[in-house]
Amino acid sequence: MAINDTIVSTIQNSLLSSTIGTESQEAVLRYVLDDILLASSLLLNITIAGVLLLAIVYLSRQVSDPRVQLILVSGVLAATVSLSSYVGLFSGLTMNFINVPDGHVLSGDSVLTMWGRYLGWAFALPFIMVLMGLVAGTNWTKIITAVMFTFAMVVANIASVLTTSNITMRWLWFGLSYAFFLVVAYIILTDWAQDADKTGTEDIYTTLKIITVISWFGFILIGAVGVEGLAMLDVWMTSWGYSILDVLAKYVVILVTVFYAVDEPEELTGGEEYGSTR
Amino acid sequence: MAINDTIVSTIQNSLLSSTIGTESQEAVLRYVLDDILLASSLLLNITIAGVLLLAIVYLSRQVSDPRVQLILVSGVLAATVSLSSYVGLFSGLTMNFINVPDGHVLSGDSVLTMWGRYLGWAFALPFIMVLMGLVAGTNWTKIITAVMFTFAMVVANIASVLTTSNITMRWLWFGLSYAFFLVVAYIILTDWAQDADKTGTEDIYTTLKIITVISWFGFILIGAVGVEGLAMLDVWMTSWGYSILDVLAKYVVILVTVFYAVDEPEELTGGEEYGSTR
Amino acid sequence: MAINDTIVSTIQNSLLSSTIGTESQEAVLRYVLDDILLASSLLLNITIAGVLLLAIVYLSRQVSDPRVQLILVSGVLAATVSLSSYVGLFSGLTMNFINVPDGHVLSGDSVLTMWGRYLGWAFALPFIMVLMGLVAGTNWTKIITAVMFTFAMVVANIASVLTTSNITMRWLWFGLSYAFFLVVAYIILTDWAQDADKTGTEDIYTTLKIITVISWFGFILIGAVGVEGLAMLDVWMTSWGYSILDVLAKYVVILVTVFYAVDEPEELTGGEEYGSTR
Repeated sequence: MAINDTIVSTIQNSLLSSTIGTESQEAVLRYVLDDILLASSLLLNITIAGVLLLAIVYLSRQVSDPRVQLILVSGVLAATVSLSSYVGLFSGLTMNFINVPDGHVLSGDSVLTMWGRYLGWAFALPFIMVLMGLVAGTNWTKIITAVMFTFAMVVANIASVLTTSNITMRWLWFGLSYAFFLVVAYIILTDWAQDADKTGTEDIYTTLKIITVISWFGFILIGAVGVEGLAMLDVWMTSWGYSILDVLAKYVVILVTVFYAVDEPEELTGGEEYGSTR
Repeated sequence: MAINDTIVSTIQNSLLSSTIGTESQEAVLRYVLDDILLASSLLLNITIAGVLLLAIVYLSRQVSDPRVQLILVSGVLAATVSLSSYVGLFSGLTMNFINVPDGHVLSGDSVLTMWGRYLGWAFALPFIMVLMGLVAGTNWTKIITAVMFTFAMVVANIASVLTTSNITMRWLWFGLSYAFFLVVAYIILTDWAQDADKTGTEDIYTTLKIITVISWFGFILIGAVGVEGLAMLDVWMTSWGYSILDVLAKYVVILVTVFYAVDEPEELTGGEEYGSTR
Repeated sequence: MAINDTIVSTIQNSLLSSTIGTESQEAVLRYVLDDILLASSLLLNITIAGVLLLAIVYLSRQVSDPRVQLILVSGVLAATVSLSSYVGLFSGLTMNFINVPDGHVLSGDSVLTMWGRYLGWAFALPFIMVLMGLVAGTNWTKIITAVMFTFAMVVANIASVLTTSNITMRWLWFGLSYAFFLVVAYIILTDWAQDADKTGTEDIYTTLKIITVISWFGFILIGAVGVEGLAMLDVWMTSWGYSILDVLAKYVVILVTVFYAVDEPEELTGGEEYGSTR
């Protein structure tokens, strides 16, 4: 009997950590709710995103210029994705305990990996790029480039934390993600800054640029020292780090833009026919 | 021996419901083929989508206006995604038995969850939005908004049926999905209706609008009372409900639009240069 | 004891082939590194894609026309996706041993299925279509159509190799994938060839057209006779076949285009205002 119990429990543990079944989601949800510091880092974001969405809708109810509307809609979509992403984490649906490979500080143990947060970035941060590109008045070629490298940056990051075969491969993915970040940073800091000068939106754009580059660099840093990297931070500290950076990188950027854009300044408006299908 | 058999069968059942392996797909396919009412609800859609695709290609072979072509292509793509989605269900690839959480009527049991159908909506319904937006002659800002909230609506719905940690979380996702539906419904019923008036396509647009809002509201209703929600309907009744609504929300909308658009009415044509990369 | 060992090993094998856990990725990575022929087919692509990316950036550093930039960016994005896709394979993250159904030559056995390669195609080949459509100077309706059917072609291919319920269903998906390929081939060979004539890019377009149709048809052929189809080729031969075709279908197409486009020929340039958000 004893040996049988051992077998069953060994296998149940394997199942728990390697499948997305009932036990796993329940176990994850219990883990989150038991850790008030962890749970609050998620609730913070859900609350702010919700309030922000209501604020944008209220503030922009009079806007009629289609180009300004597109800027505001980009902000609304980024906040909507972020809200959904944090609800996904809070419901235990989009995170798992994942066994880290040999060479990781926590090797032999399983680490709570919040892949849903990164999945949320993959769809929220591109909208931030659209918003910033439109404020800078750049062309669509450059916006598409920034959007795609942002997406690639996040996908490489997701690949990094899901790679369990080998610690070197994890850091290779991390390096790839960082390389893609540098491409985006280059576009933001040089190309679009010049475009914003020509468009006459250099003041607002400079603010957005600084917040974005600092907070995105923060993402990389937390990725390096957080629980999925060098594990110098605990799970809850990693989560709070990301949550605070998310507030900067998304909600602050969006709010600053909304306050500027709702007055429909001449630099932003594109006329009645802008983007019309007719 | 007896105890060993029990262990093996317990674990095999866990595997069956929690992984996407050979056993699971075979089990699901057997289940579908054994239930003629269920199987026929899927075959109905495959057949109609196939015939519809051939009909569109035949009817639109003379169309040369690029804007009308884009409307027709949106219809073709919606029907193609729908066809592929139902083939995915029929092959057992994109559905699983999923354990529902405590508080669900069928709690303790596993429910056949056709997540592939919702995945299909996520890529088919946005094309319906493009089609309707182009018929209404609205601007691309509004089309992108409708497309994105349609996508978010379906993703929240998928999250709902895949959440197994907690019944409250399931309904929270459902509520979020419904909120996103209301955003889309608002755009369709007010903004685009006004745009269609200006464009001169109010007759055809009103037809499309009514079919869409009624059938999409039907999706929400089946979601609430179907087997994954309050479970007042069986699996086959839920499936037939969705299949019939899919015929309305996609194939009827597409066909009505195709019959109107193939004559290339002045209200729809955008000239030879429309959307040219040159 | 003996019976217990059997149970454990049976179940561990099931887990190995049916989950994406630690064991699985490690096992896959070992398998790849043990087979020098297999490993080299992946490394070849990583190397070429990396060198190609550096070459494009170097060659195109003086390009200022936004339309030519969009062509070059499409090439960069296709190569970036391809590079990431092969790193995913090499890290063992995006391939699994999958049990093939009855009727398959290797039935009862598990086959190394490199689904990450197909996933990479789903996002790389559409950019090749954008690149070719822009060179041909066609309209966006046709580019979107080609992009979407390319995506559908690859998704149906992925569905084929992941379907384990039934051999007929595998080939049904394969047939659907082939049908979508024919739609794309038709667009490339007739519509866009005519557009290229009008644009004056018929020379370069004819080259791209021939390489694309031949190499994509090669993909279909390897799919049919490779290890996941009729299994007339081993895993490493299948992998080398795909890798060589990837060099043709992506890197050669991109390089030919880059050498033509960097001189910013009059046929390609769209003026300073092209694609501007202002």
